[in-house]
Amino acid sequence: MTKIGSSSTALNASCGRKAHPNLRRIINKTHAADLSIIFRSLPLEDQSALFNMIPDIQKKGILLSEMEEDAYPELAKKIPPEALADIFEAMPSDDVADLVELLPEEIAEAVLKKMHKRDAEEVADLLSFADDTAGRIMTPDFIALREDTTAREAIASLQKEYSDVEMPFYLYVVDEYGNLTGVSSLRQLVVVPPDTPLKQLMVTDVFSVKTDMDQEEVARLVARYDILAVPVVDENNRLVGIVTVDDVIDIIRTEATEDILKMAGVGEEYIETKSVIKSTRIRLPWLFASLIGGIVAFFIIGHFDGILSEVTYLAAFIPVIMGMGGNIGTQSSTIVVRGLATGRLNVRDIWRVVTKELCIGMILGMVYGLIIAAVAQVSYNTIALAVSVGLALMSSMSIAALVGSFVPMIMARINVDPAVATGPFVTTSIDIISVFFYFIIATTLLGLKLP
Amino acid sequence: MTKIGSSSTALNASCGRKAHPNLRRIINKTHAADLSIIFRSLPLEDQSALFNMIPDIQKKGILLSEMEEDAYPELAKKIPPEALADIFEAMPSDDVADLVELLPEEIAEAVLKKMHKRDAEEVADLLSFADDTAGRIMTPDFIALREDTTAREAIASLQKEYSDVEMPFYLYVVDEYGNLTGVSSLRQLVVVPPDTPLKQLMVTDVFSVKTDMDQEEVARLVARYDILAVPVVDENNRLVGIVTVDDVIDIIRTEATEDILKMAGVGEEYIETKSVIKSTRIRLPWLFASLIGGIVAFFIIGHFDGILSEVTYLAAFIPVIMGMGGNIGTQSSTIVVRGLATGRLNVRDIWRVVTKELCIGMILGMVYGLIIAAVAQVSYNTIALAVSVGLALMSSMSIAALVGSFVPMIMARINVDPAVATGPFVTTSIDIISVFFYFIIATTLLGLKLP
Repeated sequence: MTKIGSSSTALNASCGRKAHPNLRRIINKTHAADLSIIFRSLPLEDQSALFNMIPDIQKKGILLSEMEEDAYPELAKKIPPEALADIFEAMPSDDVADLVELLPEEIAEAVLKKMHKRDAEEVADLLSFADDTAGRIMTPDFIALREDTTAREAIASLQKEYSDVEMPFYLYVVDEYGNLTGVSSLRQLVVVPPDTPLKQLMVTDVFSVKTDMDQEEVARLVARYDILAVPVVDENNRLVGIVTVDDVIDIIRTEATEDILKMAGVGEEYIETKSVIKSTRIRLPWLFASLIGGIVAFFIIGHFDGILSEVTYLAAFIPVIMGMGGNIGTQSSTIVVRGLATGRLNVRDIWRVVTKELCIGMILGMVYGLIIAAVAQVSYNTIALAVSVGLALMSSMSIAALVGSFVPMIMARINVDPAVATGPFVTTSIDIISVFFYFIIATTLLGLKLP
Repeated sequence: MTKIGSSSTALNASCGRKAHPNLRRIINKTHAADLSIIFRSLPLEDQSALFNMIPDIQKKGILLSEMEEDAYPELAKKIPPEALADIFEAMPSDDVADLVELLPEEIAEAVLKKMHKRDAEEVADLLSFADDTAGRIMTPDFIALREDTTAREAIASLQKEYSDVEMPFYLYVVDEYGNLTGVSSLRQLVVVPPDTPLKQLMVTDVFSVKTDMDQEEVARLVARYDILAVPVVDENNRLVGIVTVDDVIDIIRTEATEDILKMAGVGEEYIETKSVIKSTRIRLPWLFASLIGGIVAFFIIGHFDGILSEVTYLAAFIPVIMGMGGNIGTQSSTIVVRGLATGRLNVRDIWRVVTKELCIGMILGMVYGLIIAAVAQVSYNTIALAVSVGLALMSSMSIAALVGSFVPMIMARINVDPAVATGPFVTTSIDIISVFFYFIIATTLLGLKLP
């Protein structure tokens, strides 16, 4: 039995000491997924050397699949097209499609030419579907048998034509036109009399998705129905592939990471492994929204210069009003974005959700408005100031909850990714609105004329 | 073939029109996972009525599993213990354990007493493991065969003693002490000569996890190695259960939601479906951190009252300095929290990560510091002010990147959930630090004496 992690630690140590005779043996014993972790921290030269030391062609394939998206093409350029074609042929077509897509066009073409015609065609077919759809992520390797096939014949076909299918747990049953009519499982095959035709043992209540369904939707269905694979049909209802649960796990993780990163305004892809310069470049534009917001707030406050010179302590409440507004706005938008992503919320519920968030914002605004009014009263003993600050905090928090829930809901409705709408954009607009309302309320209540 | 969603829409319509004769037929045709979505929006009375109309005991089980955690015990109280025991017996033990745990103690005991002794014991065993560990989420229904079992015997055992195993794809091979020695698959069984002993066809390089491993770690391993189930062993290396991929998907989704919600300061559980009062109560304390931060900032600015009355326009830059600091701090902490959650970052890398974030913070701080200094110079034509504002923004952003990455790293190191450390707490401390540095720098450079 393998103790997870132990051999990869040993490998790390060997790499450091350049103990080459041991290296090859350790590489053989280490799982490709573990190798890939070490791989990521190596410079290109060492990656190439290590890669060439791997005897197992399937391990090479997994390693390429698990590499960082920008490191992989560099390594691939150092591998001859014939060798790359051999590796690709040992991999599921959907994974190959992902890898081919990342290669420079001339290399991609050269490699596809060296592959068996059927495999190359499968990959090209997958690449013809739009990104992030069921068609693009499905594997065309599945078991499809006719309704009159017996259990015995089905088992025999597993030993012959379907010997390299990735997920042999479901056996799909199709009619003469290739249309999906039912599903059976390997488990059922072995427990029925060998002469039973599939028609008798198959389940006819089988889900399928269309090739153009969004991968997130596919993942949600697989998760909801606890299935290991979902069949994909084309516009004529012909079975063309299956999406397997391991891809679904990757989609769920990647989509969650994407949403989290977008909400924080750090692009879509995980960037920590990228260089300082690249990271900076990705983060720069998102902060620009925040800068614009800050400059607008600067002009608003500059506009109220008159009142500030008379009541300087107004400035002291700017941070609490901005901070509370920003935080409750983040709460609201996060709840909405995650709710939409997991299917707990539906865009149709927009008014219910926004009204509810507004209620919560008003209640919390009242609670914290009272507290901050008390602090202001104790500090400056001016009722008008205390009321202004309290009211400003309450309106800031109510508006923030409203904006924070409304913006992502509207975005989802017009089919813009709601996660992008959150983060810097929502926070920044809340900042501006908060500061503006604060000065309007204070100017009015403190009886000072507007500048 | 079922078109997903269509029957549930019909059911929704029927519920509205109270078309009872149709209802039963539609319920029969609707997948339990779809029923559960409608179920959530019904009041308790209707839930109970609908539940009783379901003839299929397994559907009832799925429905209970998919219910909201606070709605389920209410419905369960309306079901007689005998009926509940029957439903539980048709479910996987790990799902039953989740449901039993949520019941009031006296009901839980009554139901367990009505169940078959073996099933009840299995559930009690699972509940004896700590929450969120492999032991707690594993299913004790798995296939374990001895090394000398032949392929033919193995298939026969699938038809008899293992006929109700949830995930019959892996056949685990154990020695005389119940220790895990290898794994085979149903697929391999049907393609080898029937007399082959498992010892000859099993794979000995099999991963296993201990009962006390955190469920997040288990999920990461299953995802990394693309497996459908991982065997769980006790302290004596005896095989005691397996964690299946459907549970792993739930864990990945739940943990991602938890992290997102914690970072936004809205508790751990998805609360949008809860009442306004409950939501308010959960969100209130998180905003309190932000309030305290705001009050501290208020006192800091109050402390610099002297300089503000002389240079009122200093106040106008507070929002941009706080906002930019807050946003870059959120970027840094999000990258770290997500990196730690997905295993892309390791707590050992703390200094590398923090140094890198500090670098990025300084570069971005310089860029935006120059821009804001230019804005200040154009607006007020005072070099000292422009330099102060630029420097303050640069230090605010650098410190924010430092704090935003350092705090979650340290939290992870001392085994506190890093997601909790982000959100309101990091933002609030960055607010305070930003304001403080701003006034210190401005006071010094503008040649004004500190109050």
